Amino acid sequence: MTLNVSANRSASRAARYGKVLVLHGPNLNLLGTREPETYGHTTLADIDEALAKRAAETGLALDTFQSNHEGALVDRIHAARVEGVDFIIINPAAYTHTSVALRDALAGVAIPFVEVHLSNVHRREPFRHHSYFSDQAVGVICGLGWQGYLLALEYVLAQEAAPNG
Amino acid sequence: MTLNVSANRSASRAARYGKVLVLHGPNLNLLGTREPETYGHTTLADIDEALAKRAAETGLALDTFQSNHEGALVDRIHAARVEGVDFIIINPAAYTHTSVALRDALAGVAIPFVEVHLSNVHRREPFRHHSYFSDQAVGVICGLGWQGYLLALEYVLAQEAAPNG
Amino acid sequence: MTLNVSANRSASRAARYGKVLVLHGPNLNLLGTREPETYGHTTLADIDEALAKRAAETGLALDTFQSNHEGALVDRIHAARVEGVDFIIINPAAYTHTSVALRDALAGVAIPFVEVHLSNVHRREPFRHHSYFSDQAVGVICGLGWQGYLLALEYVLAQEAAPNG
Amino acid sequence: MTLNVSANRSASRAARYGKVLVLHGPNLNLLGTREPETYGHTTLADIDEALAKRAAETGLALDTFQSNHEGALVDRIHAARVEGVDFIIINPAAYTHTSVALRDALAGVAIPFVEVHLSNVHRREPFRHHSYFSDQAVGVICGLGWQGYLLALEYVLAQEAAPNG
Amino acid sequence: MTLNVSANRSASRAARYGKVLVLHGPNLNLLGTREPETYGHTTLADIDEALAKRAAETGLALDTFQSNHEGALVDRIHAARVEGVDFIIINPAAYTHTSVALRDALAGVAIPFVEVHLSNVHRREPFRHHSYFSDQAVGVICGLGWQGYLLALEYVLAQEAAPNG
Amino acid sequence: MTLNVSANRSASRAARYGKVLVLHGPNLNLLGTREPETYGHTTLADIDEALAKRAAETGLALDTFQSNHEGALVDRIHAARVEGVDFIIINPAAYTHTSVALRDALAGVAIPFVEVHLSNVHRREPFRHHSYFSDQAVGVICGLGWQGYLLALEYVLAQEAAPNG
Amino acid sequence: MTLNVSANRSASRAARYGKVLVLHGPNLNLLGTREPETYGHTTLADIDEALAKRAAETGLALDTFQSNHEGALVDRIHAARVEGVDFIIINPAAYTHTSVALRDALAGVAIPFVEVHLSNVHRREPFRHHSYFSDQAVGVICGLGWQGYLLALEYVLAQEAAPNG
Amino acid sequence: MTLNVSANRSASRAARYGKVLVLHGPNLNLLGTREPETYGHTTLADIDEALAKRAAETGLALDTFQSNHEGALVDRIHAARVEGVDFIIINPAAYTHTSVALRDALAGVAIPFVEVHLSNVHRREPFRHHSYFSDQAVGVICGLGWQGYLLALEYVLAQEAAPNG
Amino acid sequence: MTLNVSANRSASRAARYGKVLVLHGPNLNLLGTREPETYGHTTLADIDEALAKRAAETGLALDTFQSNHEGALVDRIHAARVEGVDFIIINPAAYTHTSVALRDALAGVAIPFVEVHLSNVHRREPFRHHSYFSDQAVGVICGLGWQGYLLALEYVLAQEAAPNG
Amino acid sequence: MTLNVSANRSASRAARYGKVLVLHGPNLNLLGTREPETYGHTTLADIDEALAKRAAETGLALDTFQSNHEGALVDRIHAARVEGVDFIIINPAAYTHTSVALRDALAGVAIPFVEVHLSNVHRREPFRHHSYFSDQAVGVICGLGWQGYLLALEYVLAQEAAPNG
Amino acid sequence: MTLNVSANRSASRAARYGKVLVLHGPNLNLLGTREPETYGHTTLADIDEALAKRAAETGLALDTFQSNHEGALVDRIHAARVEGVDFIIINPAAYTHTSVALRDALAGVAIPFVEVHLSNVHRREPFRHHSYFSDQAVGVICGLGWQGYLLALEYVLAQEAAPNG
Amino acid sequence: MTLNVSANRSASRAARYGKVLVLHGPNLNLLGTREPETYGHTTLADIDEALAKRAAETGLALDTFQSNHEGALVDRIHAARVEGVDFIIINPAAYTHTSVALRDALAGVAIPFVEVHLSNVHRREPFRHHSYFSDQAVGVICGLGWQGYLLALEYVLAQEAAPNG
Repeated sequence: MTLNVSANRSASRAARYGKVLVLHGPNLNLLGTREPETYGHTTLADIDEALAKRAAETGLALDTFQSNHEGALVDRIHAARVEGVDFIIINPAAYTHTSVALRDALAGVAIPFVEVHLSNVHRREPFRHHSYFSDQAVGVICGLGWQGYLLALEYVLAQEAAPNG
Repeated sequence: MTLNVSANRSASRAARYGKVLVLHGPNLNLLGTREPETYGHTTLADIDEALAKRAAETGLALDTFQSNHEGALVDRIHAARVEGVDFIIINPAAYTHTSVALRDALAGVAIPFVEVHLSNVHRREPFRHHSYFSDQAVGVICGLGWQGYLLALEYVLAQEAAPNG
Repeated sequence: MTLNVSANRSASRAARYGKVLVLHGPNLNLLGTREPETYGHTTLADIDEALAKRAAETGLALDTFQSNHEGALVDRIHAARVEGVDFIIINPAAYTHTSVALRDALAGVAIPFVEVHLSNVHRREPFRHHSYFSDQAVGVICGLGWQGYLLALEYVLAQEAAPNG
Repeated sequence: MTLNVSANRSASRAARYGKVLVLHGPNLNLLGTREPETYGHTTLADIDEALAKRAAETGLALDTFQSNHEGALVDRIHAARVEGVDFIIINPAAYTHTSVALRDALAGVAIPFVEVHLSNVHRREPFRHHSYFSDQAVGVICGLGWQGYLLALEYVLAQEAAPNG
Repeated sequence: MTLNVSANRSASRAARYGKVLVLHGPNLNLLGTREPETYGHTTLADIDEALAKRAAETGLALDTFQSNHEGALVDRIHAARVEGVDFIIINPAAYTHTSVALRDALAGVAIPFVEVHLSNVHRREPFRHHSYFSDQAVGVICGLGWQGYLLALEYVLAQEAAPNG
Repeated sequence: MTLNVSANRSASRAARYGKVLVLHGPNLNLLGTREPETYGHTTLADIDEALAKRAAETGLALDTFQSNHEGALVDRIHAARVEGVDFIIINPAAYTHTSVALRDALAGVAIPFVEVHLSNVHRREPFRHHSYFSDQAVGVICGLGWQGYLLALEYVLAQEAAPNG
Repeated sequence: MTLNVSANRSASRAARYGKVLVLHGPNLNLLGTREPETYGHTTLADIDEALAKRAAETGLALDTFQSNHEGALVDRIHAARVEGVDFIIINPAAYTHTSVALRDALAGVAIPFVEVHLSNVHRREPFRHHSYFSDQAVGVICGLGWQGYLLALEYVLAQEAAPNG
Repeated sequence: MTLNVSANRSASRAARYGKVLVLHGPNLNLLGTREPETYGHTTLADIDEALAKRAAETGLALDTFQSNHEGALVDRIHAARVEGVDFIIINPAAYTHTSVALRDALAGVAIPFVEVHLSNVHRREPFRHHSYFSDQAVGVICGLGWQGYLLALEYVLAQEAAPNG
Repeated sequence: MTLNVSANRSASRAARYGKVLVLHGPNLNLLGTREPETYGHTTLADIDEALAKRAAETGLALDTFQSNHEGALVDRIHAARVEGVDFIIINPAAYTHTSVALRDALAGVAIPFVEVHLSNVHRREPFRHHSYFSDQAVGVICGLGWQGYLLALEYVLAQEAAPNG
Repeated sequence: MTLNVSANRSASRAARYGKVLVLHGPNLNLLGTREPETYGHTTLADIDEALAKRAAETGLALDTFQSNHEGALVDRIHAARVEGVDFIIINPAAYTHTSVALRDALAGVAIPFVEVHLSNVHRREPFRHHSYFSDQAVGVICGLGWQGYLLALEYVLAQEAAPNG
Repeated sequence: MTLNVSANRSASRAARYGKVLVLHGPNLNLLGTREPETYGHTTLADIDEALAKRAAETGLALDTFQSNHEGALVDRIHAARVEGVDFIIINPAAYTHTSVALRDALAGVAIPFVEVHLSNVHRREPFRHHSYFSDQAVGVICGLGWQGYLLALEYVLAQEAAPNG
Repeated sequence: MTLNVSANRSASRAARYGKVLVLHGPNLNLLGTREPETYGHTTLADIDEALAKRAAETGLALDTFQSNHEGALVDRIHAARVEGVDFIIINPAAYTHTSVALRDALAGVAIPFVEVHLSNVHRREPFRHHSYFSDQAVGVICGLGWQGYLLALEYVLAQEAAPNG
């Protein structure tokens, strides 16, 4: 048996997950705009662009959204159902630890999702070790920086290639 | 700024992480050998082969090791230091929750590692929600099946391409 | 002594609780719009209509409001005081477990309220067993579906009939 | 869609829940007999009478039982199965927090039940915040005084009117 | 100021606490009937006799009651209110740690009581360190053997002598 | 050395444990009388009969008792001491988790006992993982259905055969 | 058998507990000196006098000591051993909850003691529910006001009268 | 209905559980070899012999294995699947409380098992009150000494005789 | 050495903290508008005016902002960084206990802040004893009413006067 | 309405809080005497002097006291009542977390107090997050260095100016 | 490499740790003075003498101090800084578990220390398992009796011999 | 009385503890082989040599053993009993916190032991604060580096010199 991560995905293929939404939680709009010598120059726009580029290469429709407002993120998830979004990649940031409303929104629309964190939450304050999302998610990627988003996207693409793996 | 996941890695480049060790914990040798209609046919050998293939494509030396013996895994990690392993991808399986010895072995050899779990541990018994490894790891990938290993490998390769990201 | 639930209430009587506000928390706007074969066809509009009809029968002024935004719900509660609302029926949904702001808003306007939940929260995840509202409420009704709202309304009407019971 | 609470129930209709048992736990026999200026004059007999009257209006067979003995309450529940009771309204009072035997009796006879409390248990001592019944009940009503019993009865009647709501 | 413990009490005086009930919880009927060389020969009858004798000396009406049945003890407490009992001395034994029904019965009849334990519960299993009675009692005496009952009786008598101490 | 389980026990031998009492806690009287297709047809009477038969074969006096009343079970244990019962096999059912009175009764009569549960309590609700009896029992058998009682009886017989094993 | 509390003690008898020390912990020197209309006029001197009087009546040597200094109380306990004190009555006040040093001092001199509290600590803040003394004490009396000291003294005297009770 | 424990099992019958493996965890090899006057002379070899004898009588294939190495026990369980073992009797000893690897091995091979402990773990240190095996086991026997193993074997045989009990 | 609190600050001096933002969390807009005989007439506008006046006296730029919306407060903090705010005085009110998003916003902009509470949170419900802000703050002032804000402002001014104290 | 912090206080006015006591707990005598380059040169004498100067300016009688002895601090608080102290500013230092005796002393004399900490205790070890004083204090100031004392003094003065604020 | 414990230390050498203070906490003055047949005859004076002798042999200045007063021990530690003490050996006894003041005193003077306990605290009451000193100490020796002090002294001497080991 | 640590031990004396085994747990084989400028050059071989030398000087037979395998350490302890080892010095390293098997092995062979840790475990992660060995050990030495082993050896020798101390 041969395993591949998204190797067979081409832009022309009919997608199993045709439409992906990437959600960024509160404060992620600050990324890359402060103390670049320390935190690097990668901005949220850079990440969104990289995701868009990879999506375009593989024929996937991809939208991104950031908000500091819990309610706005809930509204966006509700809209995703109407739009026919197939998969969500979400970094709930601070709301990871406090938002049952977002958890319920994701459960309510029943769209599968992967949870992504830039930093390794297990190295941080104890209250960051609990997530209201992880037990509802397909899976979790944390600590791998902005690449975590792209790896999540590769996972989505791989499902297409080997849906029954 | 353009972000890529391992896009620029070629087999001929000098590798930042030239040597990778993949460790599989207890019971993972059973993978794919029981109830294939339910759990699928992917065996540990299949996973190792896929990893080896991707490593070969990118000029990375990659070794894999499975054991049901905590002590044997500790010994293998010690050996990794002597061999000059640069990065470890480890699925500690059941030892995730019980082995301080493995945790200490990884800290003792000071080789960076990513922790991988096939299943989403957050959906399982509460004792599986705690890991002795996560706060020592670079990052964690869970719930993404065998693709988790390959995504971890992509992360290693991406570090080469964008080491200061 | 004869006990009745709102038996004596007529539309022409001067109401003790003349004005009632019904608040619906986050995600309740999704009710009845997804998988009707499983969850039924009752929408939030249906519930609001049934409440309005019963209120009209009994001469009670009744308003309803739903939002996914915690702050908007706080604002609406503040407005209730200005409008002279006498009683609130609230299903805080996900905010039941996380919103001290809503709790404080209700305490701040000092309007008595009953807490309603469609599902039996005691059968669900442990984090749903704690409510920031219950110890401030007059009482709680849970697990009785949309009828819980109507029973809460009956309770308000009954207070009119037997205010010192 | 039109929602009603028991509006269509008439005394002549064949009942879905034809037989209801109301159980009162320990010390409820003291109700209304002490310090009437403070606690009011409503006695347990008054409550039972009001329930009987409403049942009679709607053609429902209704029996009530009070005991201070845990074993006697268990025996009564067992008898309910033999008698063909369809629904139980129970105020377990102090046994709410301590009786696994009553919980098991209700599960053993598999008769659906609603749990009722006169006072708002969430405002009282912490040990009253846990109930051995709530996760087994259809739903819970608390804090609404003796009206809680009548509202529970309305719920039973409403099930008849809109069984698939 | 001169303090005395019940020094002024005489059999002819009008009693502040004219009627005292002594309650013994489950298994106390076994006292003194097994292994006398180890546990002594003092039986529950001996204790009741000593209490009766002291009550007679001081003109106090005193009744005693033992039961292994929680419900029977609840019933006895209810009866005490009807009989005009002024004070209760209770050793709830095993029910100390498990009976909310007895706690509620005592609160329901609103008769002041002292809690007595023969053994020092703080030296025994951790579950014996919690009492459902202590925070409702006037006070607690434990570890002083059968004399604890008599000391509690002295306290009752002393209240008569110095009611405002 | 040769080990046997009750192999040498014959009906004519003088018994070390000549008299055994089997106690069944609350709700066990319901066994086998509801949903036989699911729970089987084995009734409590069947179990008692099997125990009686095995006792008769081995010359052991055996009595059985079931009650839903905690106090009645306490009384029965007290009576056992008077009757000279040598060993108790008890399935405290729901009282396992709530009755200190039963625990104290067993300790009070100082008769050795084995605790039996039909179901595997470790697979059920967390509150069933604690027993007030296990640390006082000789041993515990759970999850082995009605055979658990017979195995407990075999244990009693085996003590006779090899008392110092 | 006849039970008495200290009935047979006369001033001329040789005492089993010939010498008693009464220790008062921090802030007890404030007793009775502030807001007499609320807290009464009983001062610590009044209590000590009443104890002295009762001791004199019964031929017991009795000394009292109060300090706000933990170390001074430890020193006093050490001195008690040298003086041949037979029994200690101690109200550790605030040190009840914080002083292992006093606990160890009492254990170090191995003099039996009764712990007394004026107020019912079980009605107060949760941190007052734990005592470093109770599991080392013969027994505890709490909530019975200044009479608690005198009842403790009666207990000491009663030991004389019925030492093997 | 007649209940029997393994009464009908004969050596010639086709067995439902034809092959049984008995596993002994760490330190059990020390049994019976130290301080025989205290712990008795029963060695692990004696227990294995008794089990073998009873198996032979009933036509059951039975193998036993002891190891102090967690990994070796995991390996042995894996081998059991290949060998076609139908049932496992396991005394995990110290690994009861620490080995998720053994738990996962048993789940991985999906062979039903009974957990046996020689001593009553509920009487020992608190950390021995938790088992990683009990909620996965068919049932548990503890505190009945070496007879526990034989009773577990009787249970296996009884399943044969009354498989649907 | 002479210590002063802001004594040397004059309106003309170049300020170390030239720009201060005062943030008021949810429900604080209700201040002073309800039950003035109980809570006083001080409104949020009064507090803001007093702060503005003191700032004007000392040449400090000061802005104030209140919102019931968590997201709006996060946005305001982000804006503060752009505006060059040097110091924040924040009363997070209900969000003190629930908002990781606000905590992260403050950490994200890296502006030092003092946390202020009007009431003494340590006297209120236990959930108010935990703050997501305190361990990130320079310091905390609570229980001193509206003066707490002014004292915090004095602290800011004092830093100017004695920056290395 | 105009708010001021102590603006109107002049040395000649009759003071509401005429007499203030400042208490410093254990180890505060070390302040400023070690490693001045790191901790600064501010000594306890400097702080006391600054407080005295500000008190003199405003006509307030102010005394200060430091001790490493818990009992000495208790004694000093008792003396404060006799002296007619109106307000206490206390930094209990290490006794914050361990002294019920000091808590009780403050409650015993019933003098209002503000609790001050130099460092931000919320940033330090978890055991420093609990204070035996905060729920008894008017308010708490922490983390603002020696200025915390002066701000507390300003608060006292402000009470004079606006006693009903 | 050769390791030695203090082998090279001679009385004439210049000491790295020239001055050592040994502190004994509360109740240690009782050592060896009670029940010598049980606890031995070793007094605190004996221990101090042995320490003094070993110090004299190695040219180390050594002082010892015992107090039952927490404040006196704090004062003694403060004095140690003035005297130029280089190392402290402390047995805090009961204060181990309760004194933050002593912990802070040691941190305040910044003198390295070893914590010594005569008994093995891990075998005693749970509250003795926590020490306020251990995480601040260089190391801990417990359970080795009076020899623990001498071994701590050997450690100090060994630091001299191999300061960079 | 004169106290000495091993002063009288000479190589020719008959030893009370004639045979000592030193056990090193997992990862200790890495000691001194990595980053010598940071961790020093002391290897496990150096420590073993120092121990051997000191043993030789004093006529003690001493063996050392290191393994990363829990089972191998258990086996080695079992062998120690056969060899007649009198005392064990063990540094269980990571197994300190996870191995009940090693704890049981030590209890099983009943050889007294001292537990040694190179680092001060109380300064490290919370999970290192619990040891499965300490309550079974004679005593514990931690934080004193490799000298801890030698001090433990001195303790063994001292037992010889003053066995009844």
